[in-house]
Amino acid sequence: MNVSGLIYPVILCGGGGTRLWPASKHVRPKPFLPLLGEETLFEAAQKRVVGDRRFAAPMIVAGATHRELIASQACAVQRLVIEPVAKNTAPAIALAAALLQPEDVMLVCPSDHHISDDGAFREAAATAANLAHQDWLVSFGIAATYPETGYGYIQRGEPLEGGFRIARFVEKPDLATAQAYVETGEYCWNGGIFAFRAGFLLDELARHRPQMHDLVRQAVERGEEEGRGFRPDHESFAAIDGESIDYALMENTDRAAMVRADMGWSDIGNWAALSDALAAQPKFCDSDGNVVRGHADFDSCRRVLAMSDGPRISAVGLEDVCVIVSDGEVLVTTREGAQRVGKLPGAVNQQTPTRGPCR
Amino acid sequence: MNVSGLIYPVILCGGGGTRLWPASKHVRPKPFLPLLGEETLFEAAQKRVVGDRRFAAPMIVAGATHRELIASQACAVQRLVIEPVAKNTAPAIALAAALLQPEDVMLVCPSDHHISDDGAFREAAATAANLAHQDWLVSFGIAATYPETGYGYIQRGEPLEGGFRIARFVEKPDLATAQAYVETGEYCWNGGIFAFRAGFLLDELARHRPQMHDLVRQAVERGEEEGRGFRPDHESFAAIDGESIDYALMENTDRAAMVRADMGWSDIGNWAALSDALAAQPKFCDSDGNVVRGHADFDSCRRVLAMSDGPRISAVGLEDVCVIVSDGEVLVTTREGAQRVGKLPGAVNQQTPTRGPCR
Repeated sequence: MNVSGLIYPVILCGGGGTRLWPASKHVRPKPFLPLLGEETLFEAAQKRVVGDRRFAAPMIVAGATHRELIASQACAVQRLVIEPVAKNTAPAIALAAALLQPEDVMLVCPSDHHISDDGAFREAAATAANLAHQDWLVSFGIAATYPETGYGYIQRGEPLEGGFRIARFVEKPDLATAQAYVETGEYCWNGGIFAFRAGFLLDELARHRPQMHDLVRQAVERGEEEGRGFRPDHESFAAIDGESIDYALMENTDRAAMVRADMGWSDIGNWAALSDALAAQPKFCDSDGNVVRGHADFDSCRRVLAMSDGPRISAVGLEDVCVIVSDGEVLVTTREGAQRVGKLPGAVNQQTPTRGPCR
Repeated sequence: MNVSGLIYPVILCGGGGTRLWPASKHVRPKPFLPLLGEETLFEAAQKRVVGDRRFAAPMIVAGATHRELIASQACAVQRLVIEPVAKNTAPAIALAAALLQPEDVMLVCPSDHHISDDGAFREAAATAANLAHQDWLVSFGIAATYPETGYGYIQRGEPLEGGFRIARFVEKPDLATAQAYVETGEYCWNGGIFAFRAGFLLDELARHRPQMHDLVRQAVERGEEEGRGFRPDHESFAAIDGESIDYALMENTDRAAMVRADMGWSDIGNWAALSDALAAQPKFCDSDGNVVRGHADFDSCRRVLAMSDGPRISAVGLEDVCVIVSDGEVLVTTREGAQRVGKLPGAVNQQTPTRGPCR
């Protein structure tokens, strides 16, 4: 039984810094950019839980490369777990679990998502934590508002207290399938936000991925405290076969559950998604749906995102286009093209390699 | 009777530097930019006549602002006439005429047009000069290959030796009218290239614009030689009511003639026109019709012009768009929008005012 009743937020800071290139780069990926207002996504992820007495101070899991960014953007005194190498989400989450008490309920949050309704997030977290206490592995199911083909979907099964069993997981479906999912109302997007009892997560990992479990345990046992930070043993952690928490556990366990969350969520997965998230806020948007961050002039444009770190952008006659000027690079992409930005030579051939977990 | 038989080219260097903003600016307008290859349009305008024994060394008419650009791009020893203020084309041409001998045939050429077939240009010039000797005011009629609404049209009348009388002038028609013109085959674009006998031009100006004629005469009489340059009297020239040669003379005279010229002409009047002129040359163009000047990466783009003076341009999914990066400004425009670029705040609010003739 969890004595404190607290929820322990675990914020994962990773990502390769390619899909929002050129603003996002390996050396300063998406979580650390003020994409939606003054705050960075990482700062917003912390503020979402800090100050609410149901939540403990967050634990941060990140690569060493971003240590200084984290220090400069950390909102509160907190524990930092430094991944020696990027091994995807399952090992990162298991590291955090091994550093908590078995009865602690952890709330795993990506650092690079946008959530406009923080209150709805916290309510869903409390509901999910309640199920996690009962040894469910709980995923946040995001109300699917349109047939997005870039997300994973989860189908709800029998009702539980405040949530549902998960009937099944579906990786990125085609458009027709996604449309059918949205119409049935039985499917949600898999938002990558989870609640687990730390001990139960490790038990399930031992069952489904015993080698990963043992190597994480060993990495923690042989790890070193470093001020408020913790450095797991490099050799043990490097030996892990990296895997996402969905593949390693959620799709294998009998105890997968979901809570529905309707909280204005976006993974800000590309420039079109950021454009949508900004356009949803009247303060960023003109009457033609154009959004400016920086200095831009529009003539006869609709639904254009113009974002610049300095040079003025002048746009004429464009519709549904994103223009990004950052760090001496100029990107111009259609909404449809936004999904391919990460494959551009400029995004691929960045000089500093990523060290964070790649998701 | 013209004793030498030479044709005297007069190259007009003016323009506000707004329609090809941000590459073209008041301080360095279109004629002085290497838009189509290594050469600037001004250099190309000179080379078109220099070296052919039918032509004298060109006379240049320009504003004082561009004096250094002209000196650095002049191909041959030549006379420079410095306009004290910009007064459109009629006074500029009359200045040149007053500095030539009455029997000299002058060939008036804008400095900022593109002509891909220089041989055809020279043949048309010789034909036009022959008519000019016979006291026709001769305009080059450019074969209208599509219904452009941004140009003036001239309708041919009765045949003359190598050309036609001009039946009438039409300012920028609407699309339906332009289409009808192209279909009849009787209309050409008014290319802004002219041949006149200097004395007859001044006689006709005295008849139709006597005040302008007298002020130009006075500006020349009171002007000053300055090395190879000539400075007309500021006060006299400033008192002129500026007007284009078409309005002041061509539409009023009984002696308007035209020669047809099919010479790969473009006025490079906006970014779309430049894009077309570049795309017509295989060396500039990839198989999807994209043109790069500078450094650019394309993914799924068609008919995109990407021109940068430094920063890389990365473009995804675009069609029929021009992306221009110059001097710390970023312009993105559709083909249709290209006509409105000159009205953008960046183009309008340039710090140094134009001093060249505004056309």
